[in-house]
Amino acid sequence: MATLGDIGVAATINILSAFAFLSAFAFLRIQPINDRVYFPKWYLKGLRSRSLHTGAFVSKFVNFDFRSYLRFLNWMPAALQMPEPELIEHGGLDSAVYLRIYLIGLKIFIPIACLAFAVIVPVNWTNKTLEHSKLKYSNIDLLSISNVPLGSNRMSSFQRFCSNLGSWAFLRIFFFFRGRAFTSFGFIFWIHLVMAYTFTFWTCYVLKREYEIVAAMRLHFLASEHRQPDQFTVLVRNVPPDPDESVTQLVEHFFLVNHPDHYLTHQVVSNANKPSELVNKKKKMQNWLDFYQLKYSRNPSQKPSMKTGFLGLWGETVDPIDFYTSKIETLKKEISLERDKVMCSSKSVIPAAFVSFKTRWGAAVCAQTQQTRNPTLWLTDWAPEPRDVYWDNLAIPFVSLTIRRLIIFVAYFFLTFFFMIPIAIVQSLANIEGIEKALPFLKPIIEVKVIKSFIQGFLPGITLKIFLIFLPDILMLMSKFEGFISRAALGRRSATRYYIFQFINVFLGSIITGTAFQQLDNFMHQSANDIPKTIGISIPMKATFFITYIMVDGWAGVAGEILRLKPLIVYHLKNFFLVKTENDREEAMDPGAIGFNTGEPQIQLYFLLGLVYAVVAPFLLPFIIVFFALAFVVYRHQVINVYNQEYESAAAFWPDVHGRIITALIVSQLLLMGLLSTKEAAQSTPLLITLPMLTIWFHRFCKGRYEPAFVRYPLQEAMMKDTLERAREPNLNLKSFLQIAYIHPVFKEVEESESDPASEESDQEPVLIPTKRQSRMNTPLPSKHSGSMTSLG
Amino acid sequence: MATLGDIGVAATINILSAFAFLSAFAFLRIQPINDRVYFPKWYLKGLRSRSLHTGAFVSKFVNFDFRSYLRFLNWMPAALQMPEPELIEHGGLDSAVYLRIYLIGLKIFIPIACLAFAVIVPVNWTNKTLEHSKLKYSNIDLLSISNVPLGSNRMSSFQRFCSNLGSWAFLRIFFFFRGRAFTSFGFIFWIHLVMAYTFTFWTCYVLKREYEIVAAMRLHFLASEHRQPDQFTVLVRNVPPDPDESVTQLVEHFFLVNHPDHYLTHQVVSNANKPSELVNKKKKMQNWLDFYQLKYSRNPSQKPSMKTGFLGLWGETVDPIDFYTSKIETLKKEISLERDKVMCSSKSVIPAAFVSFKTRWGAAVCAQTQQTRNPTLWLTDWAPEPRDVYWDNLAIPFVSLTIRRLIIFVAYFFLTFFFMIPIAIVQSLANIEGIEKALPFLKPIIEVKVIKSFIQGFLPGITLKIFLIFLPDILMLMSKFEGFISRAALGRRSATRYYIFQFINVFLGSIITGTAFQQLDNFMHQSANDIPKTIGISIPMKATFFITYIMVDGWAGVAGEILRLKPLIVYHLKNFFLVKTENDREEAMDPGAIGFNTGEPQIQLYFLLGLVYAVVAPFLLPFIIVFFALAFVVYRHQVINVYNQEYESAAAFWPDVHGRIITALIVSQLLLMGLLSTKEAAQSTPLLITLPMLTIWFHRFCKGRYEPAFVRYPLQEAMMKDTLERAREPNLNLKSFLQIAYIHPVFKEVEESESDPASEESDQEPVLIPTKRQSRMNTPLPSKHSGSMTSLG
Repeated sequence: MATLGDIGVAATINILSAFAFLSAFAFLRIQPINDRVYFPKWYLKGLRSRSLHTGAFVSKFVNFDFRSYLRFLNWMPAALQMPEPELIEHGGLDSAVYLRIYLIGLKIFIPIACLAFAVIVPVNWTNKTLEHSKLKYSNIDLLSISNVPLGSNRMSSFQRFCSNLGSWAFLRIFFFFRGRAFTSFGFIFWIHLVMAYTFTFWTCYVLKREYEIVAAMRLHFLASEHRQPDQFTVLVRNVPPDPDESVTQLVEHFFLVNHPDHYLTHQVVSNANKPSELVNKKKKMQNWLDFYQLKYSRNPSQKPSMKTGFLGLWGETVDPIDFYTSKIETLKKEISLERDKVMCSSKSVIPAAFVSFKTRWGAAVCAQTQQTRNPTLWLTDWAPEPRDVYWDNLAIPFVSLTIRRLIIFVAYFFLTFFFMIPIAIVQSLANIEGIEKALPFLKPIIEVKVIKSFIQGFLPGITLKIFLIFLPDILMLMSKFEGFISRAALGRRSATRYYIFQFINVFLGSIITGTAFQQLDNFMHQSANDIPKTIGISIPMKATFFITYIMVDGWAGVAGEILRLKPLIVYHLKNFFLVKTENDREEAMDPGAIGFNTGEPQIQLYFLLGLVYAVVAPFLLPFIIVFFALAFVVYRHQVINVYNQEYESAAAFWPDVHGRIITALIVSQLLLMGLLSTKEAAQSTPLLITLPMLTIWFHRFCKGRYEPAFVRYPLQEAMMKDTLERAREPNLNLKSFLQIAYIHPVFKEVEESESDPASEESDQEPVLIPTKRQSRMNTPLPSKHSGSMTSLG
Repeated sequence: MATLGDIGVAATINILSAFAFLSAFAFLRIQPINDRVYFPKWYLKGLRSRSLHTGAFVSKFVNFDFRSYLRFLNWMPAALQMPEPELIEHGGLDSAVYLRIYLIGLKIFIPIACLAFAVIVPVNWTNKTLEHSKLKYSNIDLLSISNVPLGSNRMSSFQRFCSNLGSWAFLRIFFFFRGRAFTSFGFIFWIHLVMAYTFTFWTCYVLKREYEIVAAMRLHFLASEHRQPDQFTVLVRNVPPDPDESVTQLVEHFFLVNHPDHYLTHQVVSNANKPSELVNKKKKMQNWLDFYQLKYSRNPSQKPSMKTGFLGLWGETVDPIDFYTSKIETLKKEISLERDKVMCSSKSVIPAAFVSFKTRWGAAVCAQTQQTRNPTLWLTDWAPEPRDVYWDNLAIPFVSLTIRRLIIFVAYFFLTFFFMIPIAIVQSLANIEGIEKALPFLKPIIEVKVIKSFIQGFLPGITLKIFLIFLPDILMLMSKFEGFISRAALGRRSATRYYIFQFINVFLGSIITGTAFQQLDNFMHQSANDIPKTIGISIPMKATFFITYIMVDGWAGVAGEILRLKPLIVYHLKNFFLVKTENDREEAMDPGAIGFNTGEPQIQLYFLLGLVYAVVAPFLLPFIIVFFALAFVVYRHQVINVYNQEYESAAAFWPDVHGRIITALIVSQLLLMGLLSTKEAAQSTPLLITLPMLTIWFHRFCKGRYEPAFVRYPLQEAMMKDTLERAREPNLNLKSFLQIAYIHPVFKEVEESESDPASEESDQEPVLIPTKRQSRMNTPLPSKHSGSMTSLG
């Protein structure tokens, strides 16, 4: 158990390292040479093309303007200055809404912290339970609920039995009113209870308001979006096999029959794994060719040579430039051959298609309805953005999907639960007393004050962090295997998995495992009756561990994020060895992205910790608030200057975020219930059990009220956009716009060169379409209502 | 604890009473005078108009054909003979599918019972644990799992701690393989485990097959249905208020704008509570008038007289026939006045409307999509059948609905949990030992053998039954308050509530409360550690109680159902006092209906008992099988001859039925887990915990594969029916067909007399509609696929 002093050491270390990161960043970012590392977003947007500074050659690389060093923290206000609408336009809605999560953290926890420090801390401080107990404790625990005395022992074992059966509510209420509600003991619990209620209501209020705002932002974003192919397109999967017709015929006939007024065109999906592979191979060859050409151009006197064998160690000696040039030529031919094969043969067509409609209304209808009797065939979903499609998963049939889901569930289950073993071992090692007991010969080294503080304050957090580094990739692989069709959905599912993992292993694992190894000896000699009590007591005692975790993972980690050490090094290496033209330099930039699948669960862990400890040990809250504030500024800066989102899901992840904060709230309420029952205040359970019930009701209300905005696309909105567009561009050739929107990236170049005849072909259509449209414009009864709505849009 | 002898007495009583009911029924049903009580369905169908027997006057009332008495059980094969397709046509799909629930019971439990008696019973019999224990037990318990010995005491408290934490799976598996898997103790548990797996797989197999069959039946039923107004109609609720437009204008404009090609007509819903009241009042007056007219016609010499005051005790003396005739006249005028008021004034229009479309396709689209940004406005649902609409609930706004749901949830919670007190008291009284301890002076009376057996075998079941009689009405009131819009949905929700109530109070209540009062003394002196063990042991011991419950509620109750004592008496009373014409006699019949809201939860309780006790105490199974067989025959007879379903939901309740059987399965698996852990076989938990997981996965699979058939209406089906109809009846005037379909029953008569001008008005339309349709028939590209599908339909 860490003392106040240990926490001080850990805080110092972490604050210093965070400060070092921030200073390094402040210094590096104003060097022109690093401009493309710290401001890639502006280059990608075309707003910055070359270093801003003109003048001497050296000043292109190093900043000599010393005044700018004095203003080394001015990126912080700069990051906060950009107003939100501009931010949405600049970085996309996903990023803007993602930043709001941090803001919610601040909105929830700052008032809670103020209230908790005003009320709960003084109450806990005045008790002296821990002094009289035999448990080891630190002075920081005096501020927590551990220091509140147990209830009197007048509770009979019959009452205890009742409190074990959740359903005996009426008996409990009876005993509660008979009980000691207004004694000094009762007074303390009344305060904790009232606080729990207040915190819940405040959190729910903030959540509801945010859900409302984000839903409105999403709808506004969608309504003001430009014409996008995904607005008109639906992805159809599990097209049933037919012996007489090809997939493309089948799709065409099906939609001509069942959506006769709205169907426009479709594109079948081909299995393009082979050409993809060849393209990758060609890219690698091209890299080598570039390398050798550069080498030759720098040193024209020496003609480069290489061997064709393994790793260039043996085999025939050849001129690498000629060798790779010829290789690339053959590959090019092979690729175009494979492409033609895939495009022509019906074997490589998979039973899925992107079906486009004449209107957004038609697409909205098709995406929201069931097509056939068998709900596992002709599955229709909104098509993701073209750049968001995860092509490999489009061909998976329904039954296979269900089985894959089961397999992944089992695999995930084992991953989650067997991961506990190494963490448990590390955590028990990181406990000084544990090490001293296990390896007594290390005692003299460990007892040195600095080392001891270091081990206790730093090690547990950092070992956990290392364990978690490889996890997101595994989880992403799992999601891919499970068969999601868009990258946004992959990210969302990975985030859910990562959150559950963190909840079980980091949160519960740290509480229970840590307890198990620390107090195993106690348990062995206790009756089963006392075990929940011990766990209950250990929750507030784990607060110190979580404080160090927050400092390492939250403070130093976030400060490290802004430094971008890895992209910095990689960029300079590439810049030095490979870059020849401006274009190359563009490619050497690695702006990265927010990384929803790892970032969001990390934030959620802080919500969980904050809500759980708000009543139990409120001295944890300031650490969390510092994290949220720092992270908000840092990530806002990164979104503005660095990150380049690869796709836009229009904040489709918000229901997940909301749901997880609600989960954290309910967990905190249940843990409080367990904790108070260890204080033998089981009579208050009926009052505590209403809290999670109200919270669940609140969740259901929000789900009904706001979630549809994130899942469905209202017909009125679709009709409004359609009408508006028809009025603005009556002669629009939609077919040519949609025909090449959804082709596999491998075919993109080929299609583009071939797109002319296609557009010519479809040029014949406009004669037909506008007439139809005009006739619809003159539809009978153009009511006032429709008129007013049109002008609204 | 009842002994084998007690159960024998109870069985004898119940078999005798069941037999008495059946004999009485067999005798009464062949008396011509009861024909309308026992065969009302045939009269309602018009297949039987008068008593079948001709001849003497007396033989109209009493059956003198003595041969028919010899064949007194021949209704049973007769009930089974009608093939299912005929049954569907005769009694509707709801009834036919309802009967399949009993059939599932037989399909699941007959093979399980055979296997259990072949394997589990012999294994349990050979153990002698109970003989050595200090617990009171009966010889019937020797067949149950209670008689299996506890695991050796080698399980350390550390292991027990692990088994308390659900997440420590890996430690368990470790100890399991280290454990005593192949000792004699282990062998017995392996058998129980294998049986649990076998039973689960068999149940799931049966469930999946049934879901498949029922889904196919529903789809076939819907596809072959005649033209119904609900196929074209969508119910729109929560039309937002608009200061400038009335509701009817608003609805028309909204749908003309957002569904321009499909909207046909709509009907607003009026609040007709006041005329409804007046109509009821008029009916009552009419009854009195009939009564006095009958009195006068039987005794023309004496002119009847009455007083106008309270209960006819004082006031002016008048001629009642004149009095009521004039009263009815004024009421008639008042009613038509009120009707006009409601129909003309815009104040009585509530913000809901039935919107009809030109095609089923249009209605299917509108019902399945979201209309506006705000998901709480313009809510669209499939319109229920006109006779299925629950008119009072159409006007409730969304927020009010959410709050009502919360209120009902809380009310239901209290109802469910506080209902336990009286049951607990009765159950503890029904325990002989309990009574003797509490009231020792009653001992000599109770100790009389017959009384003792009666109390033990009969009383617990019957008291419970009485408690439950008033419950369904309360639950139905709750559902009505909650705001469901169709009577089918009201019934389904009530059924769910009733099931949960039975689960908590009858099932858990009987296990835990009974235990609590019996063994309170034990608990007071036990540590918390031993409490779950005691509960675990009491589950199999409660088997005898449930056997008596099954016999009272299941056997005698079902046999009583076929006797129809209440309708019999009421019919003869009415027949004697009121009936004058054939028409009156028709009205005096009370065919009743299946009563899904009480019947289905009752069956589900038997599924629960059967699945829970299948592994634990299989000697319960034969009792359940007898119930299912008897109930199947009885209810099949009733459906064929008696019941008259008031609405048809096309088996929309099946997902509920399926879900509840799955719930029962999971509960049984969890209880087995708890029970085995009391036998200190906690190491087998990892193997047992996979069972509920697999079951949940199976449920999700079924939900995805079959549930949409019960919730959504596939567009292909709609299009097929539309195309077929258009080909068959190209000149159909749909508007006149739909215009008066959804009017409040109070306005029905008026509308029907006024419908002529309306249909005339809409007669102008057909000139337009067919042209449009013909143009659609000549749509370009009438593919082969569409052709083949059309011919399929």
